[in-house]
Amino acid sequence: MRVLITGVDGYLGWPLSLYLAARGHEVAGIDDYSRRAWVGEMGSQSAIPIAKMADRLLAYREHLGQNLRFYRGDLTDYNFVLNAYKSFQPEAIVFLGQMPSAPYSMLDVHHAVYTQTNNVMGALVTLFAMKEVVPDCHLVKLGTMGEYGTPDVDIPEGFFELEYRGRKDTMMFPRKAGSWYHQSKVHDTHNVEMACRLWGMRSTDIMQGVVYGTYIDEMGDDERLRTRFDFDQCFGTAINRFCAQAVIGLPLTPYGKGTQKRGFLALRDSMQCLGLAVENPPKAGECRVFNQFEEVYNVTELAERVQGVASGYGLDVAINPMENPRMESESHHYNPDHQHLLDLGYEPTRDMETELKQVFQDLIAHKDRIEARKEAQFPDIRWDGSRRKSDYL
Amino acid sequence: MRVLITGVDGYLGWPLSLYLAARGHEVAGIDDYSRRAWVGEMGSQSAIPIAKMADRLLAYREHLGQNLRFYRGDLTDYNFVLNAYKSFQPEAIVFLGQMPSAPYSMLDVHHAVYTQTNNVMGALVTLFAMKEVVPDCHLVKLGTMGEYGTPDVDIPEGFFELEYRGRKDTMMFPRKAGSWYHQSKVHDTHNVEMACRLWGMRSTDIMQGVVYGTYIDEMGDDERLRTRFDFDQCFGTAINRFCAQAVIGLPLTPYGKGTQKRGFLALRDSMQCLGLAVENPPKAGECRVFNQFEEVYNVTELAERVQGVASGYGLDVAINPMENPRMESESHHYNPDHQHLLDLGYEPTRDMETELKQVFQDLIAHKDRIEARKEAQFPDIRWDGSRRKSDYL
Repeated sequence: MRVLITGVDGYLGWPLSLYLAARGHEVAGIDDYSRRAWVGEMGSQSAIPIAKMADRLLAYREHLGQNLRFYRGDLTDYNFVLNAYKSFQPEAIVFLGQMPSAPYSMLDVHHAVYTQTNNVMGALVTLFAMKEVVPDCHLVKLGTMGEYGTPDVDIPEGFFELEYRGRKDTMMFPRKAGSWYHQSKVHDTHNVEMACRLWGMRSTDIMQGVVYGTYIDEMGDDERLRTRFDFDQCFGTAINRFCAQAVIGLPLTPYGKGTQKRGFLALRDSMQCLGLAVENPPKAGECRVFNQFEEVYNVTELAERVQGVASGYGLDVAINPMENPRMESESHHYNPDHQHLLDLGYEPTRDMETELKQVFQDLIAHKDRIEARKEAQFPDIRWDGSRRKSDYL
Repeated sequence: MRVLITGVDGYLGWPLSLYLAARGHEVAGIDDYSRRAWVGEMGSQSAIPIAKMADRLLAYREHLGQNLRFYRGDLTDYNFVLNAYKSFQPEAIVFLGQMPSAPYSMLDVHHAVYTQTNNVMGALVTLFAMKEVVPDCHLVKLGTMGEYGTPDVDIPEGFFELEYRGRKDTMMFPRKAGSWYHQSKVHDTHNVEMACRLWGMRSTDIMQGVVYGTYIDEMGDDERLRTRFDFDQCFGTAINRFCAQAVIGLPLTPYGKGTQKRGFLALRDSMQCLGLAVENPPKAGECRVFNQFEEVYNVTELAERVQGVASGYGLDVAINPMENPRMESESHHYNPDHQHLLDLGYEPTRDMETELKQVFQDLIAHKDRIEARKEAQFPDIRWDGSRRKSDYL
């Protein structure tokens, strides 16, 4: 199948290109290296060194026996996107090319506007370009479990049957996001649903949990095929920050009570899920939603997991909670469905411990790169709009 | 109270400035004359001549004994907005400054992107500027009943208690909009709800039905105080197009079966409702939603009403349905709540017939202006993305 990945230079995009090519797909990618720039803006860098795109593409050809068709450009530029789709004629587009950080979007008005413009207009431009060039193409759009927020009821997969005052209808489950970034994904979820409904487009909206891990088998032992690992306050997830902290001997810092629950899945499982979505397209007009995560932990449990694995590497670190810079429910109900991918044959392959061991091996080898940017991990972007470093609690 | 109206040069913004000033409020306005430009782009003009802003402001001072503080600029420009709020220190902001046309947003990718960027980022910039300058200010944001679409269940006012698998939570009622414009309002509804939740801002989201009518008493007999009346395919509502058609002897053209139901209210009642919202602010952190309409008609009933009133002026016109350029449910359940404004003391003052008589008097006096732009009323912007004139059915 011809699969185009937007954001192919990113954490998920790059390994996905390897994974899909190894499964026999023909892969193209779009990127403008924004992620590298955003992380640089935060004063940080990927802990694992990543090759520049020219070297990535060379290694790709050597190992996978095909070229990755790479288009460098901005996803909000309609003519650029249109021409890329005309030239590659994708049968599936995996849309990962968005700004993915909640704190980055909360920095100030300019970052909020940039995030929503970039993410929402990028997806909107893609809908129009698909309609024009490849109307039967399947859009696999990366959403986030964060779109739902933490309602006090169970969370279905995207849609549900609403019974209200004695009548029934199938409706979108209400979203209640907690950052401008998460709102941007709510917005394009609404836009994509409308394009399916009005234009007969087909889409899979992947409400992804937190992905962790550094390695998939398709990377082999070629350093040029590795993907990024961020640990700064914006682009590093809690689990990434904990691992980076452990490696340089700092205490692990859950925010607040640490009782916030989230769904998690390993990088290789994320690849498997995205591959299953690509290879099993919905029918025309269908807007399908997958909740994609495997295990639910609260943030303190997560820190304990990381602490346990770290001690196996002789890294004995404390857990020392930090003032929560976010506004979020710390104690809440959390019971989202995640059945659709299992129905397609998804088989979670790894437990968190095995995956974390790989992460530690990789990070220990690049300890100096974390040490050099260690200030970037400490949060000072606060949800009330101010900037002030969080204290240890 | 100091009330700032964004979009003060528009159909609702201008009369609202008169209405509020006459009730003793101090009024400021922001506009960049976009509405005049959009209607011009559609090859049309307001049937009722409207004065340029300098003349409007002069007449305003003569009749209302105060100056309207007018700021000319773009609502997506943060520094401009910030400075306007700093200088006026509004206690309420009535946010009408958005692109309000579904067909205009469906024209092509550029109009879709423009609509969502202008509307969503304009409101987002205002949230940040309010937070910075006037955090206690009340945001009265104009939404639209079209955000809800036409679900097969009753429609509450914004929020409802969801009971799902034996648990309960108060949630936003799911939105299901039918154009890029309507989606833009869904998006900023989500953004505003989050600002209330996280930042303790106060907002009233007015889910307005279709407003019709040309006159409020505060206009007196000064032509410079009149507001616009659009009849082109983008900025003219069905009721406006019917009235304009009757005046120049053309058949009235409901789209499709004409069984689509919508809620309507008179211009003077819209003013009353917006005034009630302004004068009864919600508490800090409250995101209040009012469904604002008085009567529900389907489009054919509407045409028959207009036909009836027209015949009283010797205008005998046929009703001749036209191919529907939109994709929308033509036969559907429609039972939205609209109690919150009644609870605040809203008293609908006029029936549709009385209001339509005023419209006809105004339009007959400017028949030549409709005649001169009569081509602009015929729809050719189709929801499938093509452009083709609709035929009579």
